[in-house]
This record gives sequence, structure tokens and C-alpha cells, in this order.
Amino acid sequence: MAEPIVDCDVHNAPVSDEALRAYLPGDWSERRDTVGYLDASFRRYRENLGDRSYIGAEYPRPTPRASRVDAWPPSGNPPASDLGFTRSQLLDAWNVEYAVLNPLLGAAEQLNDEYGAALATAINEWQIAEWLDPEPRMRASICVAYEDAELAAAEVDRVAGDPRFVQIQLLSRTREPLGRRRYWKLYEAAVRHHLPLGIHFGGWGGMPITGAGYPSYYIEDTGGMATAFQDQVASMVLEGVFERFPTLKVVLIEGGFGWLPPLMWRLDRAWRLLGAEVPQLTRPPSETVRSQFWFTTQPMEEPPTPADFQTLLEQLDMDDRIMFSTDYPHWDFDSPSQALPTGIDPALRRMIMGENARALYGLQPARPEAAVG
Amino acid sequence: MAEPIVDCDVHNAPVSDEALRAYLPGDWSERRDTVGYLDASFRRYRENLGDRSYIGAEYPRPTPRASRVDAWPPSGNPPASDLGFTRSQLLDAWNVEYAVLNPLLGAAEQLNDEYGAALATAINEWQIAEWLDPEPRMRASICVAYEDAELAAAEVDRVAGDPRFVQIQLLSRTREPLGRRRYWKLYEAAVRHHLPLGIHFGGWGGMPITGAGYPSYYIEDTGGMATAFQDQVASMVLEGVFERFPTLKVVLIEGGFGWLPPLMWRLDRAWRLLGAEVPQLTRPPSETVRSQFWFTTQPMEEPPTPADFQTLLEQLDMDDRIMFSTDYPHWDFDSPSQALPTGIDPALRRMIMGENARALYGLQPARPEAAVG
Repeated sequence: MAEPIVDCDVHNAPVSDEALRAYLPGDWSERRDTVGYLDASFRRYRENLGDRSYIGAEYPRPTPRASRVDAWPPSGNPPASDLGFTRSQLLDAWNVEYAVLNPLLGAAEQLNDEYGAALATAINEWQIAEWLDPEPRMRASICVAYEDAELAAAEVDRVAGDPRFVQIQLLSRTREPLGRRRYWKLYEAAVRHHLPLGIHFGGWGGMPITGAGYPSYYIEDTGGMATAFQDQVASMVLEGVFERFPTLKVVLIEGGFGWLPPLMWRLDRAWRLLGAEVPQLTRPPSETVRSQFWFTTQPMEEPPTPADFQTLLEQLDMDDRIMFSTDYPHWDFDSPSQALPTGIDPALRRMIMGENARALYGLQPARPEAAVG
Repeated sequence: MAEPIVDCDVHNAPVSDEALRAYLPGDWSERRDTVGYLDASFRRYRENLGDRSYIGAEYPRPTPRASRVDAWPPSGNPPASDLGFTRSQLLDAWNVEYAVLNPLLGAAEQLNDEYGAALATAINEWQIAEWLDPEPRMRASICVAYEDAELAAAEVDRVAGDPRFVQIQLLSRTREPLGRRRYWKLYEAAVRHHLPLGIHFGGWGGMPITGAGYPSYYIEDTGGMATAFQDQVASMVLEGVFERFPTLKVVLIEGGFGWLPPLMWRLDRAWRLLGAEVPQLTRPPSETVRSQFWFTTQPMEEPPTPADFQTLLEQLDMDDRIMFSTDYPHWDFDSPSQALPTGIDPALRRMIMGENARALYGLQPARPEAAVG
């Protein structure tokens, strides 16, 4: 058996709309019936191929539910909805010591702020009851409706006492750039509870999904997401978020990192030329990136010349910030045995496959019983 | 001489960029030099005919600076920039007891929140020094960069102790509908200081300026602004802003009001059918509109059949909420002698021409020396 690893991006989904609905707080379950539109927000996540509309998040996926074709459990329920199957197909098969769950269920994309907050609460309660309680290897991101920072901070305050929640989830496409003041109350909550922000691939803020407008193809949607990540890093650094919240940590999940060295070069040069515009900055942007950011491996840009990967690592100079992830059960799953180049230094491999994530998330070596499926 | 009136929408403008720049707080005056882009934000307001670009606020105007052709003072400075000329052409000529100033200088449209807040401070200090101190007939709206509600509330707190500031200015096209939570901190400040919000024609939130996208002509920009006002009224009422802030008062300035009865009918019907979606509402939308909103006269929709104006007033049932305005010095100025239909009830005319505004803004009958030009 390979050494135990930490998988920093695993997805979980409800068996059905009804399964999640049971966790809606207050009278939201009834209101969801009264107000039919609420179904629409769930329906998006149920369909295999959505319309390609101007909402920007409905590009066709290459496979049903964007999942591996072998990820459908024997029950016939959707991929990522069966803990037993995830145990056998991921945790046991690959000796996963800890997996960090990232539910992608649209709470922050609701236009009704209060419903978005209720949906986030439902998702977190469902994670506790159906994923964290039954499986000690699971850790989870706190789901928040981050477009209203006060409501989001209240949800963080509500659940952050549970140490199995190891970060706060945001998505990479937002209503405004994440450095802006509208999000700062959430960052206050993050540092109050010593929780990193995890910015995951996806999301929709009501704008065209690229800086060049609405592209035609899913390949542009998924392949272009790295530009949204770059915009978020630039915004958070240049708005002075980390001068204001020096202990804030940010994990970029499923965003790649090949673009990060040239981004740091650009930002440092721009800061030398135009730093007077942002006097709140106290150091070159690259220093802030290296001290505040982490990222996960899947999907890695893979240079055609193997030696270039080593060059990339040297340019990054962030060996302790790279954390392995599979993106299970999605179609672009990275196998733990093949994700990293074969020639990589063994000590660095151990850091990426587990040590870096254990350090960031404060994960203790698993107890023997934790490995029992 | 006609009886004294209150003019609820008069514009003031700096003689030049430099004249306003002198009031920028802190080191912003220097930073504006260091960072050339700041000039661009001023330049918009200096040019007669802007580009018709996708920023949506640059539609060509029918006259230079959208002003009456006779509004250029002898000094050659721009319209609305010469207090002496405004005194003679407006205050003295029409026996204006009080005029409420609405500077339109773009503070809230800045993408740099901190600069927007600094610009708002400069505008308010300039109003105090160059308009309120020299002319006791002047009252003013507090300029705030309302897209960040906390910064805007801080500016209100800073100047609200001066009783010559009688309301807080917003514009009718915003980044998000004004009922949303992102603006609530500003509304807290408004009720804390017993100041109405005055929503004036204009603004830009980065979106197409109509619900049907970007129109082709200035006539659609100006003529279509009433739909933005309707959207704002609907948003503020339906989001429950007035259940949360029951003493909040809102003045719609330069938005018309012929659209208000059918809007109330639509909202009441929608609330009867869909009220379950907005359980925060405690009464029909029309009741909220009638208890919380005021509006100014210019530009009034003018029914071709005079009797229909009387019908409109009856449908509104808001006689104590209509307040006279000229929009001086703009091209569509309404003359006090011709703004209201000739057949209007004299008691209602007195309410519209002054009494309603005195009641809302707490204006005392002017002292004799106040009338000295």
C-alpha cells in the first residue's frame, strides 16, 4: 500500500433535491414549496447538460454531471452522493488519510440572499450528518453565500467550532473581484476562526465569464477559468486585503499554478511603476502571494518538456504550498499515482501528497480505526 | 412678487477640476497627480459631448453640459459654477426661499472605493465653503460614494451635524438594486441622522442602462430613466428595507411619478399572489410607497387631456409628497410659473411649491436677510 495521502478536493452531492431539502433551516422547506422558483435553483445541479445560456454556468459538460463514467454507484444514485462508494473508489483504493470535501451546490449564486444563506446552512448540516459524522477521514469546506459577507460570516461563526470544517469555500467567479470591501466581513470571520479561504473553480457573478465576454465552448469555460483565478489573486493582493488581514490564508483549488510565476512578475513590475495608486501595499505583490497563498495540484499545467516542470517549481519557490487533489469524481480526476512527474524529488512528493495539507489544515496523523472503511 | 417657493433640485458644479481638487482630503490631491487615471474621472464632467461607449453614461447631450443655453455666466465659467449668477437667474428671479443642491460629480461611480469616498468628502467641503456659507438660501444633499455603504455611512456621520445638509444623495442607476443588503449600512446612517435619501436621475453601475440592454439614443437614456426609478422603488419595498428601517424616507428626484400608480397596482397584485416569497413584508407595497416616498415635479409626465392630471393625483393619493423642482440649470428646466397645470387647486399648489418640502426637510421660514442677493 502506498503511503497515506491527503486529497484536498473531493466532491460530495446529495442523492436528490429532497435529501438536501430536509436540512433547510426555519420555514425554508415550506417556502421552497410555496415559491416554485426555488426548484429551479436545484434543478441546475441535477441535469446532465444544461442550456447554454447567458447565465454563464450552463455550458455543456463532457460527461453526465461532469463525472468519471465509472463514478456512478451501484445504487444508481448520482456520482459523489454515496459515501460507501466514495470510500471504496477513493479513500480505500488510494489510501487517503484525509479528504477535504467541496460541495458545489450553488448557495452563493442565489439572487435571494436569505435563501442562499439558508441553503448554505442546509449544506453544512448535511455534510455534518451524512459525511463527517459517519467517516472520520472526511474534512469539509464551510459552504457560505459569500456575496453577502455578513450573512456568510454568520454561517462561519455558527459552524466554525466544529474542527472538521477546515476552510471556507468561495468560487473563482464572483459578482465583484474578491479584494473589494464588500467581502471583508467574511475575511474578518476567517481570521477570527483561523480558517483559510478555499477558492474553488467555478461560480457565476452575473457577468460574462471571461474578460473577453461569453465564449462559445465548454473548453473555453473550463480552460479559461485560470484567468479568473489570476484576477482574484491580483484583486486580493492589490486591494490590500493582506495588509488588513495579515493572517489570512487562501487556497486556490482546481485553478492550476503554471500562470502564477508570470503573474507575480507582472504584478511586481506594475507595482514598481504604479505603486502610488495603491499606497496600502507594504511589499511587492510576489512577497504577498508567497506568504498568503496555497494551491492544489489538479489540474496541473503539464509542460511538454519534463525539465520545465522543475523550472516552474523553482520560479514558484512555494514548495510548501502545493497540495495534492484528485477532484473526485469529476471527469478530469487526477490519479495519485500519476499526478506528479516521475522525476520529482521524493521529499517534495511527500510534501505535496500530504505534509503540506496536514500543516495548513492542522490534520493529525489518522488513528488506526480511521482507516476502516 | 410670487410667493416664496422651495426648489428641490438645483445643480452646482465646480469652476474647474482644480477648484474641486483643492478640497480633496489627506494626500489625495498629490495622489491624483501621481496617478494620471484620476484625471479621467474628472474629465467626463468637463466635456460637452462624451463618447457613446458601453459605460452607459456618456450619451451625447442635447446642449453643452446639458444646460440651458442662457445658463453660461458672464465669467465664461461653466453653468452651475457661479453662485452669483445662480442667485440672480434662479433664486432672485423666482423668489426661491430655499434651494436644495444636488452636485452630480461622479463620486459613487468611481471603481476605486477609497478615491470615491475622498471625492465625496471634497464635494461636501466645497459645498459648505462655496455654496452654503455664502448663501443662506442654499441647502444641500450629502454626496456619498454609496456603492460601499460603510464608507458612505462614515461620510454621513462626518457632516450630518450641519443642518444645512438635508438629505443623502443616491442616483437611480446603481451597481445592484438599492433594496439589497449591501446598501443597508448607509440606510442605518440615514435613520440615525433623520435624513431622507434623495435618489436623483442618473448614475451608472457598470450594467446596460436599461433592462433591454444598451439603447441607441440619448432620448432613450433620459426618457427611459423612469424605468430605473421603478426598479429601485420595487427593490426597496420588496426587500423589506422599510420593515427594517421604518423611519427611512426616500425622495425620487427627476424621476417623474406618472408611472407610480400602475407600479403600485402591479406590486400589490404581485404581493397578493407571491407574498410568500417575501414574508418580511408586513403590508401591501402601495401602503409602503405612500408612507415612505416623496418625489419632485421636474420632469412631470403631462397627460394631453388636462383632466387626466387630476385623475393621476387622485390615483397617487400623495398630495403631501409632491415637491416642486426646476433642475436648474439643465436644458429641461421647469419654470415655476408654468410647471403646474393652470387648473390645479390653489391649496395643493402651495403644498407642491413649498409647504411639502418645508415639512420634509424641516425648513424654517427664511429670515428677512436671507433674501438679500
